Formats: sequence, structure tokens, C-alpha cells
Amino acid sequence: MNFGVIGYGYWGPNIVRNLASLDDSHVLAIAEISPAARKRAQKAYPAATVTSNASEVIASPKIDAIAVVSPVWTHYELTKAALQNGKHVFVEKPFTSNTAQGEELIELAQRKNLTIMVDHTFLFTGAVTKIRQLLDDGILGQLYYYDSTRVNLGLFQHDINVLWDLAPHDLSIMDYLIKTTPEAVVATGQRHLNGYEDVAYMTLYFPGQVIAHINVNWLSPVKVRTTLIGGEKRMLVWNDLEADEKLKVYDRGVDIKSREGVYELLVNYRSGDMWAPQLEQVEALRKEMNYFVDCVSTGRKPFNDGCAGLRVVKMLEAASDSLGKRGSLVYL
Amino acid sequence: MNFGVIGYGYWGPNIVRNLASLDDSHVLAIAEISPAARKRAQKAYPAATVTSNASEVIASPKIDAIAVVSPVWTHYELTKAALQNGKHVFVEKPFTSNTAQGEELIELAQRKNLTIMVDHTFLFTGAVTKIRQLLDDGILGQLYYYDSTRVNLGLFQHDINVLWDLAPHDLSIMDYLIKTTPEAVVATGQRHLNGYEDVAYMTLYFPGQVIAHINVNWLSPVKVRTTLIGGEKRMLVWNDLEADEKLKVYDRGVDIKSREGVYELLVNYRSGDMWAPQLEQVEALRKEMNYFVDCVSTGRKPFNDGCAGLRVVKMLEAASDSLGKRGSLVYL
Amino acid sequence: MNFGVIGYGYWGPNIVRNLASLDDSHVLAIAEISPAARKRAQKAYPAATVTSNASEVIASPKIDAIAVVSPVWTHYELTKAALQNGKHVFVEKPFTSNTAQGEELIELAQRKNLTIMVDHTFLFTGAVTKIRQLLDDGILGQLYYYDSTRVNLGLFQHDINVLWDLAPHDLSIMDYLIKTTPEAVVATGQRHLNGYEDVAYMTLYFPGQVIAHINVNWLSPVKVRTTLIGGEKRMLVWNDLEADEKLKVYDRGVDIKSREGVYELLVNYRSGDMWAPQLEQVEALRKEMNYFVDCVSTGRKPFNDGCAGLRVVKMLEAASDSLGKRGSLVYL
Amino acid sequence: MNFGVIGYGYWGPNIVRNLASLDDSHVLAIAEISPAARKRAQKAYPAATVTSNASEVIASPKIDAIAVVSPVWTHYELTKAALQNGKHVFVEKPFTSNTAQGEELIELAQRKNLTIMVDHTFLFTGAVTKIRQLLDDGILGQLYYYDSTRVNLGLFQHDINVLWDLAPHDLSIMDYLIKTTPEAVVATGQRHLNGYEDVAYMTLYFPGQVIAHINVNWLSPVKVRTTLIGGEKRMLVWNDLEADEKLKVYDRGVDIKSREGVYELLVNYRSGDMWAPQLEQVEALRKEMNYFVDCVSTGRKPFNDGCAGLRVVKMLEAASDSLGKRGSLVYL
Repeated sequence: MNFGVIGYGYWGPNIVRNLASLDDSHVLAIAEISPAARKRAQKAYPAATVTSNASEVIASPKIDAIAVVSPVWTHYELTKAALQNGKHVFVEKPFTSNTAQGEELIELAQRKNLTIMVDHTFLFTGAVTKIRQLLDDGILGQLYYYDSTRVNLGLFQHDINVLWDLAPHDLSIMDYLIKTTPEAVVATGQRHLNGYEDVAYMTLYFPGQVIAHINVNWLSPVKVRTTLIGGEKRMLVWNDLEADEKLKVYDRGVDIKSREGVYELLVNYRSGDMWAPQLEQVEALRKEMNYFVDCVSTGRKPFNDGCAGLRVVKMLEAASDSLGKRGSLVYL
Repeated sequence: MNFGVIGYGYWGPNIVRNLASLDDSHVLAIAEISPAARKRAQKAYPAATVTSNASEVIASPKIDAIAVVSPVWTHYELTKAALQNGKHVFVEKPFTSNTAQGEELIELAQRKNLTIMVDHTFLFTGAVTKIRQLLDDGILGQLYYYDSTRVNLGLFQHDINVLWDLAPHDLSIMDYLIKTTPEAVVATGQRHLNGYEDVAYMTLYFPGQVIAHINVNWLSPVKVRTTLIGGEKRMLVWNDLEADEKLKVYDRGVDIKSREGVYELLVNYRSGDMWAPQLEQVEALRKEMNYFVDCVSTGRKPFNDGCAGLRVVKMLEAASDSLGKRGSLVYL
Repeated sequence: MNFGVIGYGYWGPNIVRNLASLDDSHVLAIAEISPAARKRAQKAYPAATVTSNASEVIASPKIDAIAVVSPVWTHYELTKAALQNGKHVFVEKPFTSNTAQGEELIELAQRKNLTIMVDHTFLFTGAVTKIRQLLDDGILGQLYYYDSTRVNLGLFQHDINVLWDLAPHDLSIMDYLIKTTPEAVVATGQRHLNGYEDVAYMTLYFPGQVIAHINVNWLSPVKVRTTLIGGEKRMLVWNDLEADEKLKVYDRGVDIKSREGVYELLVNYRSGDMWAPQLEQVEALRKEMNYFVDCVSTGRKPFNDGCAGLRVVKMLEAASDSLGKRGSLVYL
Repeated sequence: MNFGVIGYGYWGPNIVRNLASLDDSHVLAIAEISPAARKRAQKAYPAATVTSNASEVIASPKIDAIAVVSPVWTHYELTKAALQNGKHVFVEKPFTSNTAQGEELIELAQRKNLTIMVDHTFLFTGAVTKIRQLLDDGILGQLYYYDSTRVNLGLFQHDINVLWDLAPHDLSIMDYLIKTTPEAVVATGQRHLNGYEDVAYMTLYFPGQVIAHINVNWLSPVKVRTTLIGGEKRMLVWNDLEADEKLKVYDRGVDIKSREGVYELLVNYRSGDMWAPQLEQVEALRKEMNYFVDCVSTGRKPFNDGCAGLRVVKMLEAASDSLGKRGSLVYL
């Protein structure tokens, strides 16, 4: 499969490196605006065509699929053009800037029988794979909450706020793990520097008393990537910054007992062993690119398709709506 | 100063132990409903009167001050009776169940020229004392945000939810550090076990782009007590579970630069040294009880007086209001 | 059982507190040289006789057992006197200052049919109990090594160096876990401040390729209490400073494969799950004091008897011998 | 400067990558025995000559310098041949298998006016650079001890034991920081799997009461890279596995006071702030390769020259001697 890649900034080089190393894929062309980045691309991949003209890449008859690794506001136009030229598309998260764009692209791909995959890389990590398995196997029991903190020092010149920048990771993971759509969203946050929210919080109400929360922050002195997941039977902590032991599963919980009096505990605590399962060690992005090539080849529908991307965009839209009112319940 | 203590459950023994060890205070009487707790109290303090009758203690002419260490719903009645009997009062957080109760008690104490102190213990820790000093000295610069996570496995049979149980710590600290009242509050959360929210989130909008957030949870597999505070000049992490190095101050920040192009960074990061100041090592509760005795003796007004307690209750009331609507902006 | 306690300095109060709270034991008398410590003892235990005269306590006909909680150089004289007066003895580690003293005391106790227990507290912790069980059950497989680091900032005015102060913990644990005597010892170290080694290292060669190592240091900026134990099947890390998860068992190991060539690996790594078993939470010293009372009452021989204490003293003596030559192999 | 690289196994690719990216150096040829590794080398560097014949590379007239990145036992022959062919040499640590080889190579290089640099990469890290500065500036005061733990799960089919594999890192760092030669060495250890010691300990006695210790282990379930350095004025912990805050400097220490009595402390503890200086973030190997090119170009003598390499080899030889006797004091 021959690829054209649009965008060789922060993430693009990782996409190209993985596509170049897979057996069944080749990077024929790279489009990039920055001359310095083009120079780096050409030096690293002397055989590829490196250009400032994305349209040229998208129109090339030798190319089967386009990877869109450019800013969010360009996703719709580039993906549409690629689909219109008969190319399969691998597109960065978040999928589009709004629901209408996403729906149009999905419809277009369907009509032309082309594959859209949205880069929800985390779904291919050993950690998320294992958590999904723990949930599917009933190890955690009925889900109570999902609580993620994703903060660090970093504020990029996006046209987007910190929610659109960082929350798509968590929203795509939730979408994959919880397997249902939230009923309503509340988002709060504050702008301090460049007119976009750099600190934000998002609560999602899922059916069945499941609550999710995301804490994202570009102004944190330390990097944190920690998710707590509480279930009826077991609870887990996923610390993605740990080299080993990223996932710790606790045989802990609470059982409600009969009420006996004001000074007596209402509940019984269970505090058992902790267990850190060995996780698969492959690079998630490599696994994902491989899956894209495989889906396109076999016609299989990826689970991180345009619809998955659209569900994330809808949650982000609802969050933006709530955030604009400094926090208010917005139904999806 | 002679003390009567109402309540010898979880926290009461700590109050009694500290009062008994101070030079200028004596515990004459302890009132407690649970026979088992009364037995423990009598064994540890053979000289004290231990009774199930709180009124008797409150009415005792030999007693100068009452420590109210009983559930929230009893604070109003007990504090009112104590004040009416001419006793100074040290009362657990949260001060009262609602604003009206708090206002009435403050008015009554003022009229009778008696001292009310609300047990905001954290204000007497080495960590909070140092953070206040860093803010006052301008070391952190203009405040951007205050973000606290206070979670653990623990669900008590309070008549209150997790916000009323755990958030008063953070609210009293914020009140002390930020020195201003929030404009509005948003709270979200979920009930899973006993009809009270066991997972909850609270955002507070303070004047001047300061945002605060509290994450409280009774269903966490691990205990977390971490607060991030971001300022224009420096940022800090306060991990209260660390034995040493509870407070880490980072010489890090972000400076906005002129916009140059889509692919260029808008901002400049400053990443300098980290510094963990040595903190005062005294037991906070001992320091606080000492301060109470001192305030009563000298007639000095404590900074954690009834008014401070009332400000915390008002924030909790607003949060309850918001929580009842599953998250909505409530103005104070 | 009625106890006399000799020594109310750093560790003595813990001994007295536990003896006072057990159902079957009473502390009748406390002997202590320091007037300030005597005052504290008398205040906390008004019913006990508090004296500066140890002989008086040892001779008291009402007393059944003596706890010797004084400096090492006093252990022999005090224990001997106690045994001669027909008292059972609980004595601090290290048991005696040399082998001859230990042998004499063991012989005396045997002759008088009295119990000696040496305070090897760590053998009663949840962690050591669990490690012993893992070894006994073959979970770790054949033992390869035991490697302990026990460092902190602390230099006491003992008549002893850091090896005699801190290593008895590790030596008694090894003695309990490895269940055999080392063949030879090498110790190195250095004096910097008061004429005694404040930094020291000790290697012990056990039969069957088992090697043990202890790193003790009074001049460390941080406190470390970490032991690595490697076995053929599994390995573990015991971090005694962790609040939870003190013990982590790793399903990791190395299997030797046939040699294939200079650039090929000779070995195969196994890297599986990690597991942190829930440990018993009781206070180890309380459990140990209870065991002493039980052993004396029933005539049962404690596993931490004088002979266990003597084995530790012999290792310390050999280490001192080696240390005096700046490191040399000393056979036991 | 044109380079030939001998060895493209574990470390070779890093050498080549850095040489290829520097402005003033080019990799003309790579010699490697393994066909699979040659294939990887040729794919990554299509312009380079990739061969199984090291002699050919060494003899090439177009090549100015040889990087020897092959097993220890080959260092002497390859370096000698390179020097005889008039090439400068960058050689992996440890420099040679014994003192005689090292001395001969140093003499040969001197005679031919060629540069030898031994790859003591750690000397170019931000951490070691900062520690050297702290020592040079008197911040730590007089040095007391250097204590390193370098353990992990890893046992390679070297012709060498764990001391020769891992200790050269620490020995080269000590040599750089302490700036003097140890008087004597004691080493202990044990073989469990393939006939070479996989667990080993090494004590070095330096002049002036400075003691150093190294703990190396191929059979550890966890990776540890921690060094404690104690000085009269301050102490530090260097944890090389931390992403941030690798170096923590503690304003802690001990001052000896007059002796007052058996139960009184002899010493005074100072416990002040901790400080984690920001470290330089460049890749150490890149900095080192750059330094090599610079030294050769300018004729400057590198501080990590053959003599530095030889000093490390002498310590290893003494350690082997001691280890062979299961621990005994060996003078250098």
C-alpha cells in the first residue's frame, strides 16, 4: 500500500517512521509547509517525494491512502479531498472541528467504499487492551467511575483549547471501554494566557450511574498521566508514566451492610492483594498502522473508524458548549 | 482553661490527647454516646468525668470551653447550647449544616463576647503555612489555579456526601490562601452505594481568572492527597502523603511571545530548578489547640473563626445546589 | 505475668506500652538512669514503680520477667543478674557484645530452666512472615541472593559502629529465612566522625551459592529500607517504607540456554506479572511480646531464643574482625 | 572527519547515529560479524560500506578515525591495528582486558601522536557534570562516601562477569569526581548461572577517609540506578531513572558535639531544604562524540583518554583479584 503523508511536524515523523518500517506499506510522498521540516523529511527519507503542495500528493494516482497529520482545522478539507480522489484516510484526532464535517466525511467514505481510521493511538497500547479485557471478563465488576488526570507544562499555538488538545485521548478510551454514549456533559475551565482555556475539567454522565471525569491542564509544573477506574469488584490505577507496572489492579472494594447506629460504619471494606499484569510491549502506533493496512486490504471495518471519531467530536462539542457557559449540563 | 469535649469517636481522642498535654488546658469532662468509646476514654483519662450526657457537660460551671467533635448535624444545637451557657467553642468542620445556622451562632457568640473556632486543622500544618508565605512574598506570582485531589477507600455512614466530608479541608485552605470569596461554583458527582454521592468534583470561579477544582472520592483504590498550585512565576506540588519533601516548588512557567506562524510555538517555557523547602514539623492539631487557648485568653480573634467556617459552609451549600442539578453554575 | 523493664530511652516506651496493653502482662517496675525519662515514665504509668536502681527491679520477688532495653554493653550483666534471680528475660538486639557472653547466658538459662528471647522484632512483621512463607512454599525457588540497604541520617552515641547498630535487623531476618549459618563474612567500612564506622558493607557467603549483602549507613541524606531477594523462580522487592505494597513479588527470572555464538544471548529472560500480597497489619512488637508471654507460660522454646541471638552476635563478631582489616574473608 | 565503526550490535547503532548527525563527521564504513546486523546497518545507512571485514575498514586510507564498539577481548587487537594504521581511536569501556594491553596502546598512541578516547559516556551527562561542579565549588564540602547501586535483570553472554560489565560506569565516574586513585579494593560476589559472577559488590578505599562502594547485579527483578554521595556539608541522591529531578541535593549533615552522657546524643543533625538543580538535557553520547572530533581536530588531550581508561582497568583487575579470593584487601 502506497501512502502520502500530509504534515511532518510533531507527530508526522512517527507516522512516517512506522509506515516506512512495515512490510506492506511505502511512503511515496510527504507534504509539509515548513521548509525546515521538509529538509528533515527529505534527509531521513531520500526516496520519498517531499513537497509543500498537499493537493499534489492527494491527487497522485500512485497513492492508495493518505495520512492526515496536520492541525484540526485542516482535517475536513484534506480528508474530503482525499476521499474524493479515491484514497483511504488515516486522520489525526480529533477527527474534525464539528459534527457536521464528521457526518459528511463518513457519508462520503461510505458512498465511495473507502476506509476512514481516526488516530486513537491509545486504544492500541498494552494498557488499554488489558483494561478492556478486565472489563469484558468481569474482573472489575460493574463500572462505577473513570477518572483521568492528563496535565503537563505545554501550551501550543493551536486554534484549540486544552480540552480539544488533550481530552480526545481520554474520550476515545472511554468510548472504547464503556461502549456507550454519555447522556450529558459538564465542562469548566479558565483562560490565562492566549485566549484559549489552558486549565479545564469535564464530567460525563453515562447511563447506569457511571461517571467519568477528565482533568486537563497546560500549566502544570509536573507531567501526570494517571487514570483511576473503580468497579464494584475491583479497582485499578493506570499510571502511563511508569516504565514498568503501568497498570495496578486492586482487589479492593466496599460492600454495604445494614445500618446499625449513628457511630457504626455502614460499609465493609475489602482490602486484598494488588496485581500488576505484564502488558504487551509493542509500539501502539505501529500496531495501529498495521491494523489500518490490514483493514483496508481486507475491507474490515476498523473499530476506530469515522463513527468512533465522530462520537469523540460530539462530546467535545458538548463540552465546548458547557465551557462557554462556565459549566452547565449539556445533553448529547 | 477547663474543657469539656463532646464526641470521642474517630477524631475526638486526638482533640483530648492534645488538650491534655498542653500546659494551660485540662479536660474535665467527655460526653460520648457509644459505651465502648466511653470505656476507652475513661481508661485513658481516669481523672476525667466521662458521660453519655452532653447537656451535663455543657452546663457544668467548672468548664470554660466546649470542643464539639460530633457529627455535622449536631453542631448547631450543641454549639448554641454551649454559647448560651457562656462557653467558648471549638467546633469540627464543617461548621454547620447551613448558612442560617452559622449566622445565628456567629451573632450569638458576638453578643455574648465568646470565641468560636472552627477546626480547619490544615491551616496549621507546615505545608499550608509555607504556601501562604510563598504567596504573600510573591514567590509564585499571580495565582492561576488551585487543583486538589483527595481520594481514598472510605465511605462513612455520615448524613452527608463525599463533598461535605472531604471538601471542607480544601475549601478552608483555599479560603486562607486565596483570601477572597468565589463568584460561582459548579459541582458534579454520582451516587453508587448508600444514597449519598461517593464521587464528586467541584469547580470554583474566583475573581481575576483564578480557578479552583476539587476531586473527592470515597471509592478510590489508593489514597491520594495532592494539590497543584499554578502561579505566573512559579508552580508547586503539595503531596501530603510524602514523609519528606511534601512541598515541591518549581521554577517553571510560560511566557507568551508574538505569534509567528501556524507551525511555530506561541509560547516560551521556563524550566528551572525544583526546590523542596524544609517544613515546620509540629503536629498541626496541637498548634491549633494552643492557638485556641491563646485566642480565648487574650481575646484575640482567630483567623479560623465562625466567619471562616461560614464561608466554607456557603461554598458547600452552593455545591450541593449545583450537584442536585447534576452540575450547573451557582452564584454565591 | 509481671514485668520489670530496664531502660526507658528510645525503644523502652514501646516495650512498656505493649506490655501494658496485653491482657496477660503487667509492668510493675521501670528502671531508668535519666531523670527526664523517669519523669515521662511515671506520668504515663502512674501505677508502676519507677526507679534509677536496676538491681532493685531485678531482685523484686513480685516480678516474673525482665525486659532489658538498655545499651548493648549492659546486656550481659543485666541478663545474667536477672537469670540468677530466676527471671525470664526479653533482651534487645544484639543479644550480647561477644560470643562468650552469649554462650554463658544460654547455659545459665538452660540450667535454671528460664526463657531468653532476643528482640528480633522484624521476624514478627507481616512482610517477613510472608517472605518466609514464599520461601517455604517454593514460590521463589532456590535462593540466589539477599541484598539489603538500610541507611538514613542518624548517628547515635553507641559504643558500637553502624554494623552493630543496624545490621542485626538484617542478620536476624537472614537467619530466619535462610535457615543456615554463613560460611564466611567480609566487611568493609569507614569512620568519618566519632571514631566508629558510620558507613559499612557486609557480604555473607552461605552454603549453596547463596550470597547476602548488607549496606548500612548513618550518613545518608535519605532513609532507605529496601531488600532485594532473588530466587530461581521468582524475585522480590521489600520496601519497608511503603505504606501499602511493601512486598512486590516478580514473576521474573533467567534461564540459561545453549551457547550459540559470540553475538547471541546466552540466556532467556522471563518477565511476567508483579504481585503485591496483602500483609498482616498487626504491630510486630505487640505480636512478639505476646509470643514471649505465651512461650514463658507454656514452656515453649521461642525461635528467637538466645541461640538465635548468639548466631547474630557471631556474624557481627566475624564482621568486626574483617572490618578491622579493612575487608578480608573471615570464616565462622 | 571520516569514521570507520567496528561493531554494530547493541551500542554500535547509537555511535553511528550520532556520528552521522554531527556536522563534522561522516561514517564511511561499518564492520560487523552478524549478517542480520549488517543488513540493518546497510538499510539505515545506504551510503556507507558495510562489511564483515574489520581489517579492511581499519586499513582504509580514506578513514581518519576508528570507533571500536566490539566485545572487550577484541579491544586490544583492533585498537592496536588502528593506531598502527595511523587512525585515532574511540573505544568502548572497559578500555582493555588488562593493564599491560592498556599501557602498550597508550605508549603506541603517544609515539604516533594519535588520540585515544575511551567511551566513558556518563561523564558527559548533565548529572555528572553538575555533581563535578558541586564538588569543585565546595557545595558538598569534604567528600565522605560514594555509593552506587546498578542492578537490573540482564545477563549477557560476555566473556566477562557483572563487575567488568557494569562497574566501569561507576569507576569512570568516581575517577572523574574524586580525582585520585584508590589505595585498595575489596570485591565479593557469587556465580549462579553461567560461570561468571552475576551478583557482585566492590569497596574502594580512597585516600582521606573517602570510601566508595558499587553494587552490581544481573539478577535483580527491578532496574535501579541510584548513587548516594555524602559530603561534610551536603549530601546528594542521583537517581538516573527519574525523568525529571535526577539529582537531589540535601542540605543535611551531622555535626559532632561534646559527649554528655550515655543516654544523650553525641551529634547534631542539620536538616534543611532539598534542591533539584535543572540539568543540561543534551544526549551525552552526542556531546562525547563531538568532543572526540574536537579533540582530534585541535590536538587537545581528552580527559577520558587512554590513561583514564587504564585507571579503570587497574581497578577492575584489582577487583577480579579480590573476587577470586572471595573478598580480600588488594592494594593498587
